[in-house]
Amino acid sequence: MHNIQSLSVDLAERSYPIHIGPGLLTKTAELITDTLNSQKLAIITDETVAKYHLHTLLDSLNGSGFDVETIILPPGEATKSIDVWQSVLETLLARNFSRDDTLIALGGGVIGDLTGFVASVLKRGCQFVQIPTTLLAQVDSSVGGKTAINVPAGKNLVGCFYQPKLVLIDTDVLETLPGREMGAGYAEVLKYALIDRPDFFNWLETNAQNVLDKDTDALTHIIATSCQAKADIVGADEREHGVRALLNLGHSFAHALEGIGGYDGRILHGEAVSAGMLMAFEFSNRLDLCSMQDVERLRAHIRACGLPDFNAVRKCVGGDPQTVFRFMQRDKKNSEGHINLVLTRGIGKAFIAKNVNQNDLMTYLKAIYKSKGDK
Amino acid sequence: MHNIQSLSVDLAERSYPIHIGPGLLTKTAELITDTLNSQKLAIITDETVAKYHLHTLLDSLNGSGFDVETIILPPGEATKSIDVWQSVLETLLARNFSRDDTLIALGGGVIGDLTGFVASVLKRGCQFVQIPTTLLAQVDSSVGGKTAINVPAGKNLVGCFYQPKLVLIDTDVLETLPGREMGAGYAEVLKYALIDRPDFFNWLETNAQNVLDKDTDALTHIIATSCQAKADIVGADEREHGVRALLNLGHSFAHALEGIGGYDGRILHGEAVSAGMLMAFEFSNRLDLCSMQDVERLRAHIRACGLPDFNAVRKCVGGDPQTVFRFMQRDKKNSEGHINLVLTRGIGKAFIAKNVNQNDLMTYLKAIYKSKGDK
Repeated sequence: MHNIQSLSVDLAERSYPIHIGPGLLTKTAELITDTLNSQKLAIITDETVAKYHLHTLLDSLNGSGFDVETIILPPGEATKSIDVWQSVLETLLARNFSRDDTLIALGGGVIGDLTGFVASVLKRGCQFVQIPTTLLAQVDSSVGGKTAINVPAGKNLVGCFYQPKLVLIDTDVLETLPGREMGAGYAEVLKYALIDRPDFFNWLETNAQNVLDKDTDALTHIIATSCQAKADIVGADEREHGVRALLNLGHSFAHALEGIGGYDGRILHGEAVSAGMLMAFEFSNRLDLCSMQDVERLRAHIRACGLPDFNAVRKCVGGDPQTVFRFMQRDKKNSEGHINLVLTRGIGKAFIAKNVNQNDLMTYLKAIYKSKGDK
Repeated sequence: MHNIQSLSVDLAERSYPIHIGPGLLTKTAELITDTLNSQKLAIITDETVAKYHLHTLLDSLNGSGFDVETIILPPGEATKSIDVWQSVLETLLARNFSRDDTLIALGGGVIGDLTGFVASVLKRGCQFVQIPTTLLAQVDSSVGGKTAINVPAGKNLVGCFYQPKLVLIDTDVLETLPGREMGAGYAEVLKYALIDRPDFFNWLETNAQNVLDKDTDALTHIIATSCQAKADIVGADEREHGVRALLNLGHSFAHALEGIGGYDGRILHGEAVSAGMLMAFEFSNRLDLCSMQDVERLRAHIRACGLPDFNAVRKCVGGDPQTVFRFMQRDKKNSEGHINLVLTRGIGKAFIAKNVNQNDLMTYLKAIYKSKGDK
């Protein structure tokens, strides 16, 4: 008998529960009925997720008395556009959805971000529920209320902070997730350990393979730990004025590498984050902030999990120090022309560094591009 | 020497000040500097307002050290569209506006609603300031954080609750406002008196002409009283789950009359509200809730101010009882198929009536359409 774990994101009147465990998709109707008072539900999903999991969700809702609509979108990043957002809104308005009704995001980050942004603006805000179906979405994007779409000027530049009413995380849906996407999601799990949970890092060193092999108890444990870590930070800083920026550990480097790659799918976001976190550790070591022992411990773990480091990503996307630097200058976390980065004093000791020395950063980037990657 | 009046909308970390008085536009730079820490400002306005007031605002900001952009849009309701919203967002993103930067809405309700919705989603929310230039916007739409655009399915169906950081109300800008728009704004002032401020109604009976003649002290008094009334209600119920619905006194009838008119500009929103408030009083009297004395007192005041009653509006837009009824059934404040209305037990005694008797309503509508309007 596997346990269902439940925890809460504490945001006063915007607080909500997260339930984690196997088989939750089959219990959706009762979990929604306990939390929400809606007549109509709209399931928003993509073609890939619909093929594997939509029938389970519809079976759960069948006979529950809800009036259920289903909107199936094309898979992929292009779905996070103003055009698709507008079209989903117009479909829901034509079906007379109101503030008390509920949108269910069944999918990965693209579906969750898009659905959240639709929910946040439909008649100035209707209810929504996240049912994330990738490990990345389960441990990161489904919790915390960031919603967004992409515009020609860049990714995630238009959106809201808008919290779901409920997050349902069914570990069984990961059975159909490709191994490479498991690894990409695992990188974000590792991030929480590296920020401020050294004991969790110890646990991961011993148990990572059980996670990647999709053992139910191991999955439930790392998802619950990750969601609690994110809930703690979001509860302290919902709108990213301060401590929430810690969640960007490795992400400034990662966004630069993804930008060089043109977001063409050759590297996954979590893979870039894996490389980026190790870069943050290496750069912190150069600044005499972090021991080489901790850098090597992280490098060994990343390799053991089959995740890429900088050299593996560079082989894929290319680039040069100047281009990485320019992307990092444009990061939306910067302020007043300064580069702000999450650096670290060791495993579990990340901190926000404002106005890092740009010469030091450039020297580091030149060094890693010069190295043969034979380490 | 005229007084500047200042009051506050109390919403915890989203609280903000409202300043009211003559000549405030010339003091914009110092008032913004006191409140906000922005490098860039974007003034968003329309061609009509720009002609009269933009130079005063630009003069105030000149030499203040802000980097100022100006976006001038066509006047009129058609500007509150997804296309214009997207184009303003793309302009601001191309100019690298960030969360710390500030949008200034200089205009009436259309400019305020559109700018607020742009601000709410730009990189998940930047700062914004309301400088309303119509009496209607000064006493109603600039306070309380409702933002929206129109979509083919209806007006204001897509938007957010998003509060400004500051509201600057310069009574001098009303000098260029046409008399008919003064009257339309006055109807919303009257609404606050009718909801729960009987003493304010007494004051208005004596002083309405000074207001409509644009006496500075009278204007400052009624705007401050109205903003305080709205701030009290919004502070108690930001997201319209309860008492905020009182602000819809007269509006369910008004929206039906505006809908019949096709929103073609023949009647102004405030004119429809004037007729609608009197209809709410008449209907309440039919239900034995409100004395005929209070109905006649309101009718006399509306006539004295040159505002229309139902018969005047009907002569303009036509319609029939069934069509008014159908529009009222579709009102977004209804729930579960019931019609909810703001009714009254007299001047200053409005209340929210859930599930009003639909036969009674239809009987009332038939009666007023049958009457010759010679009362």
